[in-house]
Amino acid sequence: MSDFVQAHLGEIAAAAKRIAPYVRRTPVLPTDLPGEVVLKPECLQVTGAFKARGAFNALLCLREADPKLQGVIAVSSGNHAQAVALAAKTLGVQAVVLIPADSNPMKIAATRALGAEVITEGVNAENREAMLRQVAEERGLAVIHPFDDWNVIHGQGTAGYELFQDRPDVRMVVAPVGGGGLISGTSLAARGHDSSVRVIGVEPELAADAAATLHTGERQSLPAPPATIADGVRTLAIGQRSFEVMVEHRLVEDVVTVSEQEIETAVVAAHERLKLSVEPTGALPLAAYLAGKLPPVSGPLALLLSGGNADRTQLARILGQSPLPS
Amino acid sequence: MSDFVQAHLGEIAAAAKRIAPYVRRTPVLPTDLPGEVVLKPECLQVTGAFKARGAFNALLCLREADPKLQGVIAVSSGNHAQAVALAAKTLGVQAVVLIPADSNPMKIAATRALGAEVITEGVNAENREAMLRQVAEERGLAVIHPFDDWNVIHGQGTAGYELFQDRPDVRMVVAPVGGGGLISGTSLAARGHDSSVRVIGVEPELAADAAATLHTGERQSLPAPPATIADGVRTLAIGQRSFEVMVEHRLVEDVVTVSEQEIETAVVAAHERLKLSVEPTGALPLAAYLAGKLPPVSGPLALLLSGGNADRTQLARILGQSPLPS
Repeated sequence: MSDFVQAHLGEIAAAAKRIAPYVRRTPVLPTDLPGEVVLKPECLQVTGAFKARGAFNALLCLREADPKLQGVIAVSSGNHAQAVALAAKTLGVQAVVLIPADSNPMKIAATRALGAEVITEGVNAENREAMLRQVAEERGLAVIHPFDDWNVIHGQGTAGYELFQDRPDVRMVVAPVGGGGLISGTSLAARGHDSSVRVIGVEPELAADAAATLHTGERQSLPAPPATIADGVRTLAIGQRSFEVMVEHRLVEDVVTVSEQEIETAVVAAHERLKLSVEPTGALPLAAYLAGKLPPVSGPLALLLSGGNADRTQLARILGQSPLPS
Repeated sequence: MSDFVQAHLGEIAAAAKRIAPYVRRTPVLPTDLPGEVVLKPECLQVTGAFKARGAFNALLCLREADPKLQGVIAVSSGNHAQAVALAAKTLGVQAVVLIPADSNPMKIAATRALGAEVITEGVNAENREAMLRQVAEERGLAVIHPFDDWNVIHGQGTAGYELFQDRPDVRMVVAPVGGGGLISGTSLAARGHDSSVRVIGVEPELAADAAATLHTGERQSLPAPPATIADGVRTLAIGQRSFEVMVEHRLVEDVVTVSEQEIETAVVAAHERLKLSVEPTGALPLAAYLAGKLPPVSGPLALLLSGGNADRTQLARILGQSPLPS
């Protein structure tokens, strides 16, 4: 194990201990899928997604460094918003979340219901980073980045850390890639467990920046937010820290891509065959498996199903298509 | 503990050991629902329902009694059919399943896919019991009744047995009631664990024969198959053995009823709040909880979600209704 992996594995182990009182240790579930396929269903995590792990770890680290921490701020239209809101509410600090005004009203309401101050007015995809820094400075709030923050990455890595504690025989782990926080934490946990474990990321074809980055060795960005149904991975590029993990240290073997149809088929399969309500982003690893996009592996394969916060009407539309092309 | 409970608890413990190589030990999952509510999600069981427990136990007991067992036969249009088919296939004996011709073609196909011989021609709700006995006799097959069989009841009781092993602090357990196999096994396991644990059954208002039976002390039957969406509990009356457990030994405190709308609301809540794909029958305990139909309890409450084999188009229709009355 390299010093780099060893140091980060220690941080992930510390994160697991730090966040244990606040998050769930999700089970590892068996499946009937051909080959030996197991699931780490983070849809069963608090807030319905793995994001709670990173948010709690980051907030707890911030408070360890500054016991007088006033509050935190984040920008997100999705699962990170709810995770930061829950962590702040639980730990008794203020949370401000910037959400673009045209976001899903249900997600805005869910974030408000968790006690966060939600700012939507004037927030759009172009100016939100600038607004984040401005509000953070004006109000003395600490920023919790959704992925490009080591504390967040170590928190996300606790899902993989638990997976290998429960199933040390897993030979390949597959996770979605957006900004890269989850795949980075997962790969550090996996390769810290055993340097021969293989780690595969999955992206929509419409948002293949991480695949391009890994294949070219240079950080590639999308020109505009991609129109993929997998709304958790619409980021334009992976973070600098994930570049370090994935490309410089080559801890991720490959990033494979799936079509929008393959994602929808996987959402249906998650319901019908796994009995789990998984959102499109959370279904990416299953999509890659079902579409035969994963490299062959001898030994157990683990799919990290990252979240279950699907919009009900979207879910109804996907499930209502019958029959799906296979 | 009465001798009756003690004897059956011993049989349930033996069943748990007997079926362990073939079924899953489903996890006990926490929830964010108000009060301390935990789930025993049998939708995650093999075949997508608890029925696999009883089918494997019954078949293994039959084979212990007769090592030359030729095959088994069952009548079912639902989860029991798939459970018997899987158990027979796994244990290398022949399975014949009678399914009324107007049943869900997907369930017929699923039972055939598990290697069972499916007979649909001429089978209807009126003649199916007579046909069952006739085919069983002609072909020398052993009948596995879906609920009125102690081996089946002991198998179904292993879900509750595991629940109390994992969470001995649970004070009330809630399960659906159709023919009574699951609630009987559950109550024997629960009261064997601690005679002060409370056991509540849930039925659709449209199929309230068990509630009437418990409240009058006499076995009550429905005049015709009820038109409830909860297709797993359309039985006309509970079995004789369940009458013994529920009424004569009073191991079930009450059977409460829920409306069709309350069942649909619970299916949506299972998806949105629990991230589990639960069929209408499996959602009955959650429906009773959400509708405030359960008696107050001090201490953890467990909902036994019995299955997840919802028809996709039905699920799409239920999830697509927006907003649901609350």
